[in-house]
Amino acid sequence: MPVLLNPDRAPALSELLRAIPGGLVQSVVPGIGQWTNPRIAGLGSLASAGPNEISFIVHPKYLDQLALTQASTVIVLPEIEVQLAQLAEPVHFARVICKHPYLLYARIAQWFDWARMPAREIAIHASAVIDPTATIAPSVTIGPHVVIGPRCKIEAMSQISAGCVIGADVEIGASSLLHPRVTIYDGVKIGARAIVHSGAVLGADGFGFAPDPTLARGAWGKIPQLGSLLIGNDVEIGANTTVDRGALENTILEDGVKLDNQIMIGHNCRIGAHTAMAACVGVAGSTTIGSRCTIGGASMISGHLTIGDDVHVSGGTAVTANVSKPGRYTGVFPFAEHTDWQRNAAVIQQLSTLRKRLRKLEKE
Amino acid sequence: MPVLLNPDRAPALSELLRAIPGGLVQSVVPGIGQWTNPRIAGLGSLASAGPNEISFIVHPKYLDQLALTQASTVIVLPEIEVQLAQLAEPVHFARVICKHPYLLYARIAQWFDWARMPAREIAIHASAVIDPTATIAPSVTIGPHVVIGPRCKIEAMSQISAGCVIGADVEIGASSLLHPRVTIYDGVKIGARAIVHSGAVLGADGFGFAPDPTLARGAWGKIPQLGSLLIGNDVEIGANTTVDRGALENTILEDGVKLDNQIMIGHNCRIGAHTAMAACVGVAGSTTIGSRCTIGGASMISGHLTIGDDVHVSGGTAVTANVSKPGRYTGVFPFAEHTDWQRNAAVIQQLSTLRKRLRKLEKE
Amino acid sequence: MPVLLNPDRAPALSELLRAIPGGLVQSVVPGIGQWTNPRIAGLGSLASAGPNEISFIVHPKYLDQLALTQASTVIVLPEIEVQLAQLAEPVHFARVICKHPYLLYARIAQWFDWARMPAREIAIHASAVIDPTATIAPSVTIGPHVVIGPRCKIEAMSQISAGCVIGADVEIGASSLLHPRVTIYDGVKIGARAIVHSGAVLGADGFGFAPDPTLARGAWGKIPQLGSLLIGNDVEIGANTTVDRGALENTILEDGVKLDNQIMIGHNCRIGAHTAMAACVGVAGSTTIGSRCTIGGASMISGHLTIGDDVHVSGGTAVTANVSKPGRYTGVFPFAEHTDWQRNAAVIQQLSTLRKRLRKLEKE
Repeated sequence: MPVLLNPDRAPALSELLRAIPGGLVQSVVPGIGQWTNPRIAGLGSLASAGPNEISFIVHPKYLDQLALTQASTVIVLPEIEVQLAQLAEPVHFARVICKHPYLLYARIAQWFDWARMPAREIAIHASAVIDPTATIAPSVTIGPHVVIGPRCKIEAMSQISAGCVIGADVEIGASSLLHPRVTIYDGVKIGARAIVHSGAVLGADGFGFAPDPTLARGAWGKIPQLGSLLIGNDVEIGANTTVDRGALENTILEDGVKLDNQIMIGHNCRIGAHTAMAACVGVAGSTTIGSRCTIGGASMISGHLTIGDDVHVSGGTAVTANVSKPGRYTGVFPFAEHTDWQRNAAVIQQLSTLRKRLRKLEKE
Repeated sequence: MPVLLNPDRAPALSELLRAIPGGLVQSVVPGIGQWTNPRIAGLGSLASAGPNEISFIVHPKYLDQLALTQASTVIVLPEIEVQLAQLAEPVHFARVICKHPYLLYARIAQWFDWARMPAREIAIHASAVIDPTATIAPSVTIGPHVVIGPRCKIEAMSQISAGCVIGADVEIGASSLLHPRVTIYDGVKIGARAIVHSGAVLGADGFGFAPDPTLARGAWGKIPQLGSLLIGNDVEIGANTTVDRGALENTILEDGVKLDNQIMIGHNCRIGAHTAMAACVGVAGSTTIGSRCTIGGASMISGHLTIGDDVHVSGGTAVTANVSKPGRYTGVFPFAEHTDWQRNAAVIQQLSTLRKRLRKLEKE
Repeated sequence: MPVLLNPDRAPALSELLRAIPGGLVQSVVPGIGQWTNPRIAGLGSLASAGPNEISFIVHPKYLDQLALTQASTVIVLPEIEVQLAQLAEPVHFARVICKHPYLLYARIAQWFDWARMPAREIAIHASAVIDPTATIAPSVTIGPHVVIGPRCKIEAMSQISAGCVIGADVEIGASSLLHPRVTIYDGVKIGARAIVHSGAVLGADGFGFAPDPTLARGAWGKIPQLGSLLIGNDVEIGANTTVDRGALENTILEDGVKLDNQIMIGHNCRIGAHTAMAACVGVAGSTTIGSRCTIGGASMISGHLTIGDDVHVSGGTAVTANVSKPGRYTGVFPFAEHTDWQRNAAVIQQLSTLRKRLRKLEKE
């Protein structure tokens, strides 16, 4: 549906595939007629792609949609190509045979995303307020109304979009992209190729208070948050996500961590490499999460826990204890029609009594 | 309590009601003495309204409060007026009789909100950075430090408040209001009469990654988000809410959708007309929600689901499966004193065993 | 680990303790050799503190870590000092004996936080847009790209950081700190010594709509939010937290309230003094919460409730009814390995039937 390039700028399929890195393509089967080597102006799902577009099928269960697609080219698994070849009526579209169709789709989408983008203007907008002690590489782009504090270092090819506010002593690696209105507090370090979406706040104070009865009954005294926040390479951080600085140690996001929108990472947490979290997750302070974990949306991880590598938490789950064994973990109250829920929820409050009554019957 | 207008600018009740559209008023019963046709300077609840104010009663259960109110005028249901007329001691306040008192209250509040507002200055602040290719209707107001990208179109009477950042190719319909510090990414379209609150981020990238073992074990390759975000007319979006753009298709909010604060709508979602969501709701990607639904606060809707029209989800519920039948749905763990909870929660882990033991007893 | 001061600016232990208010120190036991009265350049945990740093031990269970610490000085409870004095091999580090080690640590951290901070430049940045009718105390600092509306009052020593947008008629008490990119809507009042983190939105419209069938089937008419938001003294508000203004009355945060990040407080709520909420909590409209409560992360409090003083809600709990009795309350579905959860969750839907079956057996 979203034709991305003007048809006269669209590459032929063979040209497009030559531009995609990684050796993912196993072979190409030409389509019929005008689709021998079609021009590709964009990508689309099987249902929405038009005749100028390439699509993909990741699972045989979508074969029905494949039969109906209007795409001129489809990325297919080898086993699907085998099925297509056996059809009485040959399909008209070209096929790109590939063992990782979803990854190839991602790479082709990256190519189109790059091809459609207007040339980036390397410039520092006149309205930006940059401390004279900051070091900004010459290839960096800085948008309107940006503020950059003392002694910051921004490396080559990075882009700081409109309205970002960056404190003192912040470091941002090469080829990083801050979308508009990101805030970075003093002393935060970010690696190369970061993508940070609008509204994210990196390095705000952790939530640290000591009971201070000398102020008032029940009053809290602030514990200054003297640690910082260190972010590795290739990290993406979603819109309005917040990652707090450490109290004494640092909060750490390792390489390749991907955080969706509206996530909260508390102070002193360490999130392992390539761990991905869906939106609205909260991780309380001083928790360590291993590498290659996935945390489903709206999950909550308590503080001071250790979660191992390769742990997968289902959406909506409250993780309240350490998890050392890889695997999938869940804890969600099943939803139901309200009156059914009411009936069953009422019993929850009596479960322990119910068990006792059952035991008693068993003994009789 | 909040007297909104200077008493000498306050309209008489009869004048005020003439200004309210919609034919909602059935009749007016004058009050006694000075309250025959009182001047109305503001609105208040029954408990807090003073003698210059109008109040309302939406349900007979608040009759106790009605007896004590100091309001000079009260909006009442016809059946409540019948009760008032039978009282031995007549009430002093004027009554506006109306079958939809809450709606009439809303309309009167809208009138006061308009009447108290200072005349809007139609102007573009000198500090705003507006691309010369953008089309801004002459009646549009643009605040300080706003940034508007190439080829945007902002229609008549709209107001873009301080610090908003609007990307390229964005369209905003007539009479829309962006509160301060809203971010809109490239290509997003918004209809007429939108209200968007501060910190909202519209059209950021959806959370799309393909496993890419060629980068590192467990690494993720970014899937560019090539779709956009389309928003209908009369939509309100709360503070710090995020609505992501689509991956290949568009994310869509239909006419009249109302989203409270801190909501997250994932990529490719479609939210039906007049559906309202309370704060902190998360909707994962590619889910379709029908029209006229209400989603309670802090609910979570999983991805790739279809929720029909007129579905009402209680707050705190995790919806993890399709819902086609209208009605109310719930799934919340009942809270209790901590030790009671502990006792009962321990049994949850044994429910399946408990059922087996029960079956065994039944067979004996 | 974070050595905060240049060693030549580091105070001797005796000097440092003289600078700390409150009479918390019971006595000091000198260390051995060079640690008789060591210079203190920073703070650290037992595990991470170096020889220039002071650490603290809050509980005897950390004695193992105490034995290994490299800190030159440790804050200890009197009972721990008794244990240390009985050791065959005397410890080398100095001890500060104190009944409230965590509070003393907080105070020392506050001292270092102050000592390391560069002198604040009292100035109004040239790019700030301040309405001429606003009253700004001469000792106030205002950062770049700030916007301040008509008739605002900002009291002495307050700091408004870059990119903040403050509406009309806002009042901010003395010595308050707004971090970058905070939004405050018209009419909000904030007390003294507030700390507000980036992305917070204070006083946006509450979520108020009346069904308005005259517009369209299922349509909602906006109820203007005519109340305001009043915030007491010594309140801290976390990054991206939102607190809505009232509909007719005001929303109120009393003195000493501490809100972590990504919290949502609905319209007309009243939060009692010194109540603290961890991140991601949502409080629906018109709920009153007492004083000295703690609300665990990601908890949800329904609307129109009354929660008393000294109530402690565990993280992840949905509070759906009034709570008058002080104590701890919980309601979290226990998480488990996914297949175990599946097995047990399936029984939840049959709990009411299960109870009936049990009753039947009991009667037999």
